[in-house]
Amino acid sequence: MRIADLVQSADWKAEKHVPVLEAADRVQAGEKLTVEVCVGKEIAHPNTTEHHIRWIKLYFKPDNGKFPYEIATFEFNAHGESVEGANKGPVCTDPFGKVVIKLNASGTLIAESYCNIHGLWESSKAVTVVE
Amino acid sequence: MRIADLVQSADWKAEKHVPVLEAADRVQAGEKLTVEVCVGKEIAHPNTTEHHIRWIKLYFKPDNGKFPYEIATFEFNAHGESVEGANKGPVCTDPFGKVVIKLNASGTLIAESYCNIHGLWESSKAVTVVE
Amino acid sequence: MRIADLVQSADWKAEKHVPVLEAADRVQAGEKLTVEVCVGKEIAHPNTTEHHIRWIKLYFKPDNGKFPYEIATFEFNAHGESVEGANKGPVCTDPFGKVVIKLNASGTLIAESYCNIHGLWESSKAVTVVE
Amino acid sequence: MRIADLVQSADWKAEKHVPVLEAADRVQAGEKLTVEVCVGKEIAHPNTTEHHIRWIKLYFKPDNGKFPYEIATFEFNAHGESVEGANKGPVCTDPFGKVVIKLNASGTLIAESYCNIHGLWESSKAVTVVE
Ligand SMILES: [Fe+3]
Ligand SMILES: [Fe+3]
Ligand SMILES: [Fe+3]
Ligand SMILES: [Fe+3]
Repeated sequence: MRIADLVQSADWKAEKHVPVLEAADRVQAGEKLTVEVCVGKEIAHPNTTEHHIRWIKLYFKPDNGKFPYEIATFEFNAHGESVEGANKGPVCTDPFGKVVIKLNASGTLIAESYCNIHGLWESSKAVTVVE
Repeated sequence: MRIADLVQSADWKAEKHVPVLEAADRVQAGEKLTVEVCVGKEIAHPNTTEHHIRWIKLYFKPDNGKFPYEIATFEFNAHGESVEGANKGPVCTDPFGKVVIKLNASGTLIAESYCNIHGLWESSKAVTVVE
Repeated sequence: MRIADLVQSADWKAEKHVPVLEAADRVQAGEKLTVEVCVGKEIAHPNTTEHHIRWIKLYFKPDNGKFPYEIATFEFNAHGESVEGANKGPVCTDPFGKVVIKLNASGTLIAESYCNIHGLWESSKAVTVVE
Repeated sequence: MRIADLVQSADWKAEKHVPVLEAADRVQAGEKLTVEVCVGKEIAHPNTTEHHIRWIKLYFKPDNGKFPYEIATFEFNAHGESVEGANKGPVCTDPFGKVVIKLNASGTLIAESYCNIHGLWESSKAVTVVE
């Protein structure tokens, strides 16, 4: 069995688990590039103690290189758990993250997300780096 | 030895390692609250393969409860590492994160950050939740 | 509010949340040192979808240095969650971890653990490094 | 681009990056199962500030279910970094982890590992659960 058999893909407008990846299409080499990732932009995903998005990972695969680099991991850790019981706690974290990166080569951003009961999902976006 | 002996605190305008925590002072219960965390807002911190901010953790301690809840972890994972050698890689991640949460009790946000050679740092901010 | 106000300490034989840290008292510089951490060695902690130990972090503070180094993080991610409902899933992860490290200075190992509803706990153990 | 294009596979006896996954082939439902993961069992991988194994993730895909569950993440965080410069620090973490789980369905364990300059690698192992 391979990871490829585990990570699901779909249109995020129709399937709520697919991570949405937003960033400019082009950026100057070495300039700040803001990247936003989220799950549930069009169709909200539950956020309960029993069922929630736990994390989104962000990778970058340069066009001129063989290996991907991990850029960031966002862990969403609060889902209403509490001593009073499930879903009675004081805080919930939405599955949304924003990061700022600098690139010096063109390539592809890849987001991977994990729902604690519906597994792994992915999406990607190409970014062109100009000098 | 205690964790209390390990986590350093200071004014972030004078000490570059201290996490900066930005959020509204007041929020409606259950409404979205945006929280931004970063290191180096006033004095930039290096971001090299050898020396960088690796993560920021965000906790919430409700006024009416004894225990803190972990809200989110932001891992900043790219620091110029590459097959060509240190600091020649295609991507660097800034120590900045943004998260969206919902609160239903007043309390304190606490940010903890980790520099891979200068250890643990913290800051906090109170938030009042109104009905 | 400080992290020091959040991290609790106690005797692990009496309080089930305290991380147990097991390692040799002395080790040769640069030789492999096995470190085991767990929660619930004497009194088992629940491991349910609603209440569980989520992670243990391991730090090292050298005697001759000012800053702690993060050695490892163990995340325990499966707690019976499933599409069929809470606690009906096929897998649970015990709060136990083992890691192998090399030290070249004497210092203190510090373990920090997190229960999703009972917060942060810590313990520590000195290790002497001999040439 | 898909995650499937990023995660590499090979024989761990010939390629040092491939995670080695060791566990019993059969286990009683609900009994403790020890799972060990490591990188470099046959051919050691470097562990330097500039080049190291950063983490291993462990998943479980039940035969009777569609989605994988994340079991554990092992982060190896110390690689000789220090104020004195790269590779002069007091501690290094080997890419080895051990976890204890309970299964109640047959399925496949999948390990995914990340080298900070050579990217993602995977391996898997089937486990039969008997009543
Ligand atoms: Fe889901
Ligand atoms: Fe620093
Ligand atoms: Fe507990
Ligand atoms: Fe490598």
